[in-house]
Amino acid sequence: MQNFSFHNPTKILFGEGRIADIGAEIPAGARVLITYGGGSVVKTGTLAEVKSALAGFTVFEFAGIEPNPTYETLMQAVELARREKIDFLLAVGGGSVIDGTKFIAAAIPFVGDPWDILARRAPITSAVPFGSVLTLPATGSEMNNGAVITKKATQDKLAFANPLLYPRFSVLDPAKTLTLPPRQVANGVVDAFVHIVEQYLTYPADAAVQDRFAEGLLLTLIAEGPRALAEPDNLAVRANLMWTATLALNGLIGAGVPQDWATHMLGHEITVLYGVDHAQTLAIVLPAMLQVRREEKRAKLLQYAERVWNLRDGDEEARIDAAIAHTRAFFESLSVPTRLSDYGIGADAVAALVAQLERHGMKKLGERRDFGLDGSRRVYELAA
Amino acid sequence: MQNFSFHNPTKILFGEGRIADIGAEIPAGARVLITYGGGSVVKTGTLAEVKSALAGFTVFEFAGIEPNPTYETLMQAVELARREKIDFLLAVGGGSVIDGTKFIAAAIPFVGDPWDILARRAPITSAVPFGSVLTLPATGSEMNNGAVITKKATQDKLAFANPLLYPRFSVLDPAKTLTLPPRQVANGVVDAFVHIVEQYLTYPADAAVQDRFAEGLLLTLIAEGPRALAEPDNLAVRANLMWTATLALNGLIGAGVPQDWATHMLGHEITVLYGVDHAQTLAIVLPAMLQVRREEKRAKLLQYAERVWNLRDGDEEARIDAAIAHTRAFFESLSVPTRLSDYGIGADAVAALVAQLERHGMKKLGERRDFGLDGSRRVYELAA
Repeated sequence: MQNFSFHNPTKILFGEGRIADIGAEIPAGARVLITYGGGSVVKTGTLAEVKSALAGFTVFEFAGIEPNPTYETLMQAVELARREKIDFLLAVGGGSVIDGTKFIAAAIPFVGDPWDILARRAPITSAVPFGSVLTLPATGSEMNNGAVITKKATQDKLAFANPLLYPRFSVLDPAKTLTLPPRQVANGVVDAFVHIVEQYLTYPADAAVQDRFAEGLLLTLIAEGPRALAEPDNLAVRANLMWTATLALNGLIGAGVPQDWATHMLGHEITVLYGVDHAQTLAIVLPAMLQVRREEKRAKLLQYAERVWNLRDGDEEARIDAAIAHTRAFFESLSVPTRLSDYGIGADAVAALVAQLERHGMKKLGERRDFGLDGSRRVYELAA
Repeated sequence: MQNFSFHNPTKILFGEGRIADIGAEIPAGARVLITYGGGSVVKTGTLAEVKSALAGFTVFEFAGIEPNPTYETLMQAVELARREKIDFLLAVGGGSVIDGTKFIAAAIPFVGDPWDILARRAPITSAVPFGSVLTLPATGSEMNNGAVITKKATQDKLAFANPLLYPRFSVLDPAKTLTLPPRQVANGVVDAFVHIVEQYLTYPADAAVQDRFAEGLLLTLIAEGPRALAEPDNLAVRANLMWTATLALNGLIGAGVPQDWATHMLGHEITVLYGVDHAQTLAIVLPAMLQVRREEKRAKLLQYAERVWNLRDGDEEARIDAAIAHTRAFFESLSVPTRLSDYGIGADAVAALVAQLERHGMKKLGERRDFGLDGSRRVYELAA
């Protein structure tokens, strides 16, 4: 395997009722800004539960962080936090709220325009500490140091990461996910699935444990994802999905192995131009991506076919075809369509999507940094 | 799954040449005490490499930490550290050196007799920070906060753990394991294997990911363990073994699931009375333990048979028998014998071993705390 450093200091508080424990994780006397999204945490009572656990702290609120959180919205929170001298942030919601809160945490002490953190990779030397209460298992943001932020004005969707941006703690209470609409549950399963694939379906790197862990997480999603939709009150299923989504992107399965992320880059452009859910874009791109890059990924595709889908019969081409077909069918079984046309996007979109990739410098993608715009065009065409 | 908290702040520096990076992980100006064992790190050059990486620090050395580190030896290091006002410890060696260094770290600031930390569970409120350079993959001590210490005077072997006792960093350089004698390689594989089993072969707890991860680690040991002995120069194999042994006991696969540890408790007494290697005692106890407790462990034994040993034919009893036989044969294939008699210990030892367990209060062992001395006696008898 490749040399690596692994250091994930986030403390996980897992299980029903763990919100009650957050007070002990925040410095005494802190002025806390709770950040959240569109109000579902108000309706479900989660926000009230969080505020009750914060009795004794001075608490402020910032609502309205949207899916694919925008710089424009987040800067309002930054201004509030600076004005009120906030010294701890608490994200209550899904990956978008946590991602947005990471940007707020870095932006508060930043000198200059914080958009430079993304656009110019400006260094971050400090960040306001923060925790999270996760309500939507999907992105893994609750136990990693990365975030994706969109600038509405320019339709840019960019990623950043920094060792200062691990949550101090994250509460994973699976009971909080029981009220999610089926579409969000399905999206979360697809999102976690593709996170794993981006770190696994590359080329063999003699990383036996990372492979086994990735396969174990995929097998868990395949078993538990459909159950979460069929048995929406099954808390044990939700618990397994929640822990799987966290471990899919906390750095562990990606340590010491090549990583891809081209599917994400191609997906981001679909979201930016057409407003399709992040996970839906991944379901569109991944099957086509695996088809277009089957030669570069051959050895791992065969391993994936055997260990994840139990495909042992037929020649190599047949097993790879079947593995890709099973992947597509799995997404479809969760009611997540896998073609651009399923979302009303015509083949004429391909040129615009490729132009976006070019504008964002995405000319050398993939685990070998050799997947260019021609390849991306073929993926979009195949996904039409 | 059960509620859990997971927080592992140890930074892992994995790969060849990573010793060169340790200087950046230790506070500038620190007075560093290097701790090590019997001198193999001198012969292999690892100690010299460590000292070279610590140029600029004031460095002291303490040699002679033995396998099954003793209170008597470690207290000499504590006195040295107090006298020289050490503010960082660096363990260079295997699990015994790291375990011993954890005790030293806790004992330096301890008021009173530090043996009380083990014997009376005296609280630890501070500890000297420490790192490790691992040379023997086996115990997982490099990424957890626990240790086992022996008091020579009374033949007590006791365990303790504390959140203050995670290494700040651990270097895992698989090249440093190439010079290990085969017996230590084999012992390491057995030790890691049984660590996993103690957290996995209990009763079903709806912990899908933990099960898959445990199975993935076991499958890796089964594939790579014999290769490490057959291909002693294969660095990729050593890398996989090293990372597996660390992940076997860093808290991850044990989070949210019942744990057993009875095999370890019964094994400890064999080491204390007869000086048998720790891993050898586990190889003696485990097959007998699984046989004696096959009813309580039935469901997981069947899962283990299927997923780890690919045993799908025959009735339940046959599959369980075969899984236990495969486990024993795996240890034997590594040249680690699995009977007390193989080590020259007669059946008359059983009474003395049970008396030791009783003296140490080990009357309610196992995942349900209902495994008593009669059961332990049957295990020792079956292992004769």
